[in-house]
Amino acid sequence: MMRKLLFLIFVLVFSILKAENPSIFLTPTAVKEIQKSLGKYPAFDKSYAELKSIADKAILSEIIVPIPKDGGGGYTHEKHKNNYYEMNACGILFQISGNKKYAQFVESMLLKYADLYPTLGLHPEKKSEAQGKLFWQTLNDAVWLFHTANAYDCVYNFLTLEKKQVIENKLFKPMAEFLSNGNEANYSTFNRMHNHGTWSQAAVGMIGYAMHDKELTDKALYGSKKDGKTGFISQLNVLFSPDGYFTEGPYYQRYSLWPFIVFAQIIVNHQPELKIFNYRDGILLKAVNTMLQLAYNGELFYLNDALEKTYKTQELVYAVNIAYKNNPAEKQLLDIAKQQNAFVVSGEGLFTAKAVSKAKTNPFEYKSMLLRDGANGNEGGVAVFRAGKGKAHSCLTFKATSHGLSHGHYDKLSIAMFDNGNEILTDYGAARFLNIEPKSGGGYTKENYSWAMQTIAHNTVTVDQKSNFNGNIKESSKFHSDIQYCDFSKPDFQIVCGTEENAYAGVRMIRTTAMIQIPDFEFPIIADIYKLNSDTAHTYDFPYYYIGQFVSADFKYQKNITELKTLGSKNGYQHLWLEANAKTTKAYARFTWVNANRFYSITALTNANTELLLTRLGASDPNFNLRNETAFMLRQPNASNHTFATIIEPHGLYDLSKEITNGYQSNVDKLDLVQDNNDFTAIKLSARNGKTYLIVVVNKDFNIKMERKLNINNQTISFDGNYYFKQL
Amino acid sequence: MMRKLLFLIFVLVFSILKAENPSIFLTPTAVKEIQKSLGKYPAFDKSYAELKSIADKAILSEIIVPIPKDGGGGYTHEKHKNNYYEMNACGILFQISGNKKYAQFVESMLLKYADLYPTLGLHPEKKSEAQGKLFWQTLNDAVWLFHTANAYDCVYNFLTLEKKQVIENKLFKPMAEFLSNGNEANYSTFNRMHNHGTWSQAAVGMIGYAMHDKELTDKALYGSKKDGKTGFISQLNVLFSPDGYFTEGPYYQRYSLWPFIVFAQIIVNHQPELKIFNYRDGILLKAVNTMLQLAYNGELFYLNDALEKTYKTQELVYAVNIAYKNNPAEKQLLDIAKQQNAFVVSGEGLFTAKAVSKAKTNPFEYKSMLLRDGANGNEGGVAVFRAGKGKAHSCLTFKATSHGLSHGHYDKLSIAMFDNGNEILTDYGAARFLNIEPKSGGGYTKENYSWAMQTIAHNTVTVDQKSNFNGNIKESSKFHSDIQYCDFSKPDFQIVCGTEENAYAGVRMIRTTAMIQIPDFEFPIIADIYKLNSDTAHTYDFPYYYIGQFVSADFKYQKNITELKTLGSKNGYQHLWLEANAKTTKAYARFTWVNANRFYSITALTNANTELLLTRLGASDPNFNLRNETAFMLRQPNASNHTFATIIEPHGLYDLSKEITNGYQSNVDKLDLVQDNNDFTAIKLSARNGKTYLIVVVNKDFNIKMERKLNINNQTISFDGNYYFKQL
Repeated sequence: MMRKLLFLIFVLVFSILKAENPSIFLTPTAVKEIQKSLGKYPAFDKSYAELKSIADKAILSEIIVPIPKDGGGGYTHEKHKNNYYEMNACGILFQISGNKKYAQFVESMLLKYADLYPTLGLHPEKKSEAQGKLFWQTLNDAVWLFHTANAYDCVYNFLTLEKKQVIENKLFKPMAEFLSNGNEANYSTFNRMHNHGTWSQAAVGMIGYAMHDKELTDKALYGSKKDGKTGFISQLNVLFSPDGYFTEGPYYQRYSLWPFIVFAQIIVNHQPELKIFNYRDGILLKAVNTMLQLAYNGELFYLNDALEKTYKTQELVYAVNIAYKNNPAEKQLLDIAKQQNAFVVSGEGLFTAKAVSKAKTNPFEYKSMLLRDGANGNEGGVAVFRAGKGKAHSCLTFKATSHGLSHGHYDKLSIAMFDNGNEILTDYGAARFLNIEPKSGGGYTKENYSWAMQTIAHNTVTVDQKSNFNGNIKESSKFHSDIQYCDFSKPDFQIVCGTEENAYAGVRMIRTTAMIQIPDFEFPIIADIYKLNSDTAHTYDFPYYYIGQFVSADFKYQKNITELKTLGSKNGYQHLWLEANAKTTKAYARFTWVNANRFYSITALTNANTELLLTRLGASDPNFNLRNETAFMLRQPNASNHTFATIIEPHGLYDLSKEITNGYQSNVDKLDLVQDNNDFTAIKLSARNGKTYLIVVVNKDFNIKMERKLNINNQTISFDGNYYFKQL
Repeated sequence: MMRKLLFLIFVLVFSILKAENPSIFLTPTAVKEIQKSLGKYPAFDKSYAELKSIADKAILSEIIVPIPKDGGGGYTHEKHKNNYYEMNACGILFQISGNKKYAQFVESMLLKYADLYPTLGLHPEKKSEAQGKLFWQTLNDAVWLFHTANAYDCVYNFLTLEKKQVIENKLFKPMAEFLSNGNEANYSTFNRMHNHGTWSQAAVGMIGYAMHDKELTDKALYGSKKDGKTGFISQLNVLFSPDGYFTEGPYYQRYSLWPFIVFAQIIVNHQPELKIFNYRDGILLKAVNTMLQLAYNGELFYLNDALEKTYKTQELVYAVNIAYKNNPAEKQLLDIAKQQNAFVVSGEGLFTAKAVSKAKTNPFEYKSMLLRDGANGNEGGVAVFRAGKGKAHSCLTFKATSHGLSHGHYDKLSIAMFDNGNEILTDYGAARFLNIEPKSGGGYTKENYSWAMQTIAHNTVTVDQKSNFNGNIKESSKFHSDIQYCDFSKPDFQIVCGTEENAYAGVRMIRTTAMIQIPDFEFPIIADIYKLNSDTAHTYDFPYYYIGQFVSADFKYQKNITELKTLGSKNGYQHLWLEANAKTTKAYARFTWVNANRFYSITALTNANTELLLTRLGASDPNFNLRNETAFMLRQPNASNHTFATIIEPHGLYDLSKEITNGYQSNVDKLDLVQDNNDFTAIKLSARNGKTYLIVVVNKDFNIKMERKLNINNQTISFDGNYYFKQL
């Protein structure tokens, strides 16, 4: 507390705004450097050429600044978006090329906006409480200003004082006022601990720096009351966990990092004494690295509301370029920059492009890691397992976090799996068609709530066909799961245990998942033990959403071939077609599918009550909004205590090009539950080559030093810690 | 006839078998060249290293030659397959490296086969009439011999005379006899005009050359009776059309070209005087080029029974390397070789690798072309439309051929479309999981017959819910569709017309399809006019199998959200779930979907009777063998004469990475049928920018020179030829 106060005083005393323009994305030094460097770094040249082609197309087009009317994806929405991209491009082009036609374009367009803006009320379409003027939500207005501030900054010295006054007084000042204080919703957003707040602060701060308006920049940094309790810097304390994890998940981490990282660089340009990139042990740079780790094969994980996002998005180009400039020791960022093959046309972009062209880049090092959730790191976390190297390595995510604000899903103790370059067990992510107007205006479709957020949409257990916390976000937000332990120290046996005590009244859930690399199996396998404890009887549904084509099952199933019905009527079940169901007389069920050139088998313990369901998504979907994904679901009806135990195993080769097939059968010969009580769960895994392995996990008193003793088949097994893994 | 006879005499007189070994894949000259060149051409080195790693692994493993038992994908099947790959690799490695351990491996394995072979009856699993001994069909035995002949050839000079006699007398001679004359089915295959015949002939011929057995090579070249009426050379007259099209389609063209092209090269090595690559105006080289043209983005079209096959398959590496060696003027082959990034370890492979390393390769030039079907080129054909360049160009296939033998589909006048690097309107291809034993033994599944071959599985019209020729292959094989004309001379308007008179008794079908490139549309669009004539009433079903996610429809549909039922009970209809149905009060129906980053719209003429159906594949599929593809289907019930007219239009941009959406709405404002009679069909296309175009096509008396005259809205339109296209 004392430290923060001292910091604040320091800041207030030494904050002197520099008077140079440009100083937002570009600086005079950067401009000179770029002018000298063009033609030397092909990938940087390409990025410049792209910007130039936007600018060149813009200056030949009629300037249209339409009266705001449409929602996301609609004409006026996309036009205003396009306008800021054009102004941004022309601003930069003016600086680099010195050609005044670009500056004139920005001037003309800004004057049109200055005419329009004072006439605007709130946007006719309402997306959220914080309703915008140019767009349907304030968020988009902020993004507009974020880009336009740079354009203005670039042409600042070109404009006459009179023009500047018109533009500032009619457009930028009212807009900054609207965003930060226009109404209750906007004030609250501007002062809120949320990525929308970050965008507002960055936009207001950037135009503040461009206009040399210290009042605005102080508000952006320290909140409307300038007391540091809200504002950009306070967000750095709260929005990321100590491990740099953003509670909404990687998709929103990516989006919120954009204003964070860009605005931070601009603060460096204007107030270097703030040492913003060192703040909170360098939390921003850590957050960039964490985000890059939350990906497989260059695609961000689908945790919570998430759409497909790759490393190549522009916001990650900003993040990587700026992070590298501010920490050039982090050479592995150059690997990502190389993959991106695009650079920000700025000093940071050029700096990174030069480094890429010189350095022999080492691959970005993906590591197994636990990323704790919560501002203090004590609200569970996401564990990421990795094995192997390169694009095709094996990876598993294990999510035991807090709810994740409004974009969170009811997916306590859920996993997703990647292997061989592909998604194998999928998290649905979000049901949304971003910017496609006929699809719910480009926003989240109602299936996002009725399906994607529901527990049954995830690779975890649903109790009594109800979602965690009965789908009540207020309740869910009060609690978080816990990661009890996490040991990635042994490459042959990596393990994580998560528990959830609150999602279902009276049901304790313990999931212990291990990634095992032993020579008996060609690829890393997953041992997945999911224990449910309750005093009363429940139905436990446990789906695995597999991607690929069904190959075989070792149980006889009844497939519904002339008529399909839904599995249930609510909580997500209404969206599942029941394709087939089965029971088995064996002690385990085997299910095999093929994905790309590899086979995958799930071997799951079963008993006489276990029902096996094969489902396909797509029911109760009147507007064709859902993807038609498939699940192998274990259902344990009328059970109080129950333990699911499965092995998930990649195996064999299916090479359609060379017409070679090997090992389409699982190498798991048997799976036995040899002990299961309140203290321990022990399973025995028998490989087809005759070797057997014992896996013991503890179910309570988690402690990495505690001595444990148990009896299995009259043999005493003792170990220290939380688990035991040994060949028998 | 006279020419052929003279050729034959020439051949019989001058055929003197050379005595050198090796002379199958390798020659002594090639061996020396390769030895000198290793280390100089990285891609060639890589191919050599791959072969070496197979060989090095082989010589460290136990040699196992199991008693044949399993079908495709099963253990003994894959083991025998692996054995021939290992022998082939070791044979080549012995030649290049001189290391005897490789030759010893081949010797030991061949001796084991020599022990086993005489003990074998027919394989216990029966796949076809031509049952093999090592494998379930003779075809696989032939492929075994094809590879093993090379291995034997490579180690020939290493083996003692005694060992050679054991191997030839107990293994190769009986096997050659079995393949060519072992029983009625094999004799018939060996002398049949079919790709299985080619494999038998090539295998027998190759081991014949390796053993210096002129009797065998003559039989391979000229048939069992050595009269030239059957045999390899006669197949060159029959199996390819004058345009180098193989009647079964590109998938089997690829497969059959393998023995064709390899055996032809071996004939060059031994009987260069035959000038085999010049035979029939260079039909083999033409067939290689045709096959490469029958692809989009490096993937072969899915016509008839077909699975995914890319340019990278080993057989296409052979084809490209050997074709280039025999026609080095065809520089564009180097572009394909470069994409393959793999070479045959042979003289031809090295020759091509050298050329790739030196030449500045021009892109392979994809062209719009008509590939006639039938030995004489008069049995219809496949027309391929192309527009634009590069990987993302637009392409449409139009199939109006003969049946295509046993792998043919009932798909008269069917189209498929590709754009932006992706498949947009799909041909299902084959329902098969090659070499996956639990999936119908790796062979065609029964859904291949009940679904993939049926007319309703294709983008063409099904009459009265029955397939062409009522699904009777004998009937279908008697007839063929006709290409009435084909004009690819004008880039802005390419057009093809196909007719089918026999598929449905009393129904005449005329499909006229144009690819139009005009500035009013950002991408090439398709105008598709499908006219049905009959004296009696029928139901015409016309599906478009689109790939992608539904975006919007301009008609109100009833979606079945809690229960799905099948569309019919037979002829493929039993496999379709009816997801939604609709009628429209407008004069046309609009259907839009998104695929990758582009939108696609179908605008289809409708009337009050037209029913609009949205279907999904997957019903009546007890073993999960089908993919779950979707269709937008137009149904015209109770119609005698009816004309479907649609515009298929790619449009807009859906960039999820930059979060930009443009032009999600079709640019077709209106579509009108302005005239439709026995002579002419005329449609008017109105673009959203206000421009209108008239398209007139003739429906009879096709003639590119004929003068035509018709009256539209009291205006006389006259033109020469078969079509008219003009802006109004």
